[in-house]
Amino acid sequence: MQAHGVELALIRQNADLYYFTGTVQDGHLFIPVQGDPLFLVWRVYSRAKEESPLENVIRLRGFRELPAHLREQDMLSPASVGLEMDVLPAGLFLFYTKELWPKAQPKDISRLIRTTRAVKSAWEVDQIRAACRQVRQVLDLVPGIIRPGMSSLELSARIECELRERGHPGYIRMRSWNQELGMGQVLAGPEGAVPAWTNTPAGGPGTSLAYGMGAGPHRIRTGEPVSVDLGGCINGYCCDQTRLFVCGSKVPGPLRDTYERLLEVHHHVEERLLPGRPSREIYESAVEKARSLGLGDWFMGNGPDKVGFIGHGLGVEIDEFPFLAKRGDMTLQEGMVIAVEPKLLIPDTGLIGVEDTYLVTKMRSTRLTIGDRRIMTLS
Amino acid sequence: MQAHGVELALIRQNADLYYFTGTVQDGHLFIPVQGDPLFLVWRVYSRAKEESPLENVIRLRGFRELPAHLREQDMLSPASVGLEMDVLPAGLFLFYTKELWPKAQPKDISRLIRTTRAVKSAWEVDQIRAACRQVRQVLDLVPGIIRPGMSSLELSARIECELRERGHPGYIRMRSWNQELGMGQVLAGPEGAVPAWTNTPAGGPGTSLAYGMGAGPHRIRTGEPVSVDLGGCINGYCCDQTRLFVCGSKVPGPLRDTYERLLEVHHHVEERLLPGRPSREIYESAVEKARSLGLGDWFMGNGPDKVGFIGHGLGVEIDEFPFLAKRGDMTLQEGMVIAVEPKLLIPDTGLIGVEDTYLVTKMRSTRLTIGDRRIMTLS
Repeated sequence: MQAHGVELALIRQNADLYYFTGTVQDGHLFIPVQGDPLFLVWRVYSRAKEESPLENVIRLRGFRELPAHLREQDMLSPASVGLEMDVLPAGLFLFYTKELWPKAQPKDISRLIRTTRAVKSAWEVDQIRAACRQVRQVLDLVPGIIRPGMSSLELSARIECELRERGHPGYIRMRSWNQELGMGQVLAGPEGAVPAWTNTPAGGPGTSLAYGMGAGPHRIRTGEPVSVDLGGCINGYCCDQTRLFVCGSKVPGPLRDTYERLLEVHHHVEERLLPGRPSREIYESAVEKARSLGLGDWFMGNGPDKVGFIGHGLGVEIDEFPFLAKRGDMTLQEGMVIAVEPKLLIPDTGLIGVEDTYLVTKMRSTRLTIGDRRIMTLS
Repeated sequence: MQAHGVELALIRQNADLYYFTGTVQDGHLFIPVQGDPLFLVWRVYSRAKEESPLENVIRLRGFRELPAHLREQDMLSPASVGLEMDVLPAGLFLFYTKELWPKAQPKDISRLIRTTRAVKSAWEVDQIRAACRQVRQVLDLVPGIIRPGMSSLELSARIECELRERGHPGYIRMRSWNQELGMGQVLAGPEGAVPAWTNTPAGGPGTSLAYGMGAGPHRIRTGEPVSVDLGGCINGYCCDQTRLFVCGSKVPGPLRDTYERLLEVHHHVEERLLPGRPSREIYESAVEKARSLGLGDWFMGNGPDKVGFIGHGLGVEIDEFPFLAKRGDMTLQEGMVIAVEPKLLIPDTGLIGVEDTYLVTKMRSTRLTIGDRRIMTLS
């Protein structure tokens, strides 16, 4: 904070609150550059007291009480105040900067927060590993659930039920505005090649024009690719894994051939997940590799709808730093957790992809998601 | 817009985009006070063209192109510009007001949008009716799913699966910042009396401290109240209904007695859902009625964790205008759709509640949610 000229930071967004307080409440967390943090909680105060290890948890009865609490803690006249300007709504931003701290200089601390969160502790990695086990258990059930004639929505519903029964909260937090995700994207056949508004390589038709992303009405046919992309979640930490399924006892030759080439791209990226590597370089190298294997036209989408990334950090949100992207500007560090997801969107055929979550370690990267990468057929 | 001094409005948030364009894309919708709207779409342009009935849909290749497009449409120098300041992140707000339109006066149009959306068209009511049928079908299945020893999370998972198979998108949009909801709250026994950070009367423990709301680990016991609160969703429109279940062949006497008194409050509110009635008056009257029936201590929560409302509008979001609330300042109008949810949070016992969704019509209100209000027992 000192290096960024921030005298006092205010944290309000759910995922950030969980990261810094250990609980999600309707609260204001004030972090001064020196001294103890102050957690003012409107709702639910009793849960904040019980669930957070912070010492200084005080009940807030309403916004009107803010000045009095801040005066008492000597936090009413900072020279600068850091706010989560990438997520904080404009109305609240204007209240804090014009009414609460009219003399303080506002600073955007979103990049500082996201950079701090990008490197995970051992405890955090353990939670992500638990999420990986959750997803593995469910992926293992898919061959017993999937059958020709079933819609991708029915398959998705059954998969989501299994995740929920294993402690999944039912949805995963995304930081970027207007981004939405349930527990993943289950896409079968041609609908896998339909892009959506989300910052995801694939999209899908969804259940209506209002929620036009994810599983839809397409009925699964024997031999076509069924992509199961799941975000597991345990104790607020997520993992991301995609596996390909085919209804039937064997994988059609052309699909197997295309998938083998995609796996080469995946291995290519895997070998480059090392501390010190620039995130953009890994992206560019993957795009070049895909092109050299004849996959360029479909890689990460088609034409103007291609997305400019092949991987993303994840933790308490599924779109964390770093991004292995065209505009990525970070260098990989030990302790970062990154999902790598090379995907092909082939018109009329569907989505062919693979995804694993990795921990960047000293000399190499460690895969956290579990299981081999063969296309799974009907059991 | 004219009456509010807004020369040009910019719509960006998903639910608002769906309402005004018929699709959800990563787009900018510009609505001038005179002339045709302009929909600039970054992603996915082809879907916007296909899914939206708007004429003027143009591909946007990036933020840098915005000034050129606006100049061409004579939208670069408005005297005032309306923005969704309750949801638009501060960073984007500063970009639009400082860089794109530095000379325009920013106006908050969130109230104008929400007020416009509060009165539903016949088509919108039809979608909400379809959502009501979706929820009814699933509530009818609950007696066949619920059994003693099952956790509320398992019950919730099974219910959510049934909703998904009937076209539910898997989550419902909420407008207020940091609010989250999957498809509802399924709460059994004592966990039903646990409040959460959300603007909902009930809360629940959820699956972890990170997602501390909704169904949890409590195992359902014979005779205790199981509250099933579901938000249905069809074509982007939601309904809200709560019904009470009991594992076992009969409802314990004290639970039945308390519930009967709560139903009196429900009927009391139902009779007052009329055009011309102030939303706050209905709230206050319900609180007074609950008090007169001896339910005051538990009504809408306990002590400082009570919520100050008993109903809410709903449509493309589940927290729409009007709010039947302590701070409600609207007057009911024909065409408004409102969920009424009197609830008791009784410590150690749980959540006892009922909820229905209504359409305010000329002389009375019409219930849209389906089925009687008896406590349902195990079939």
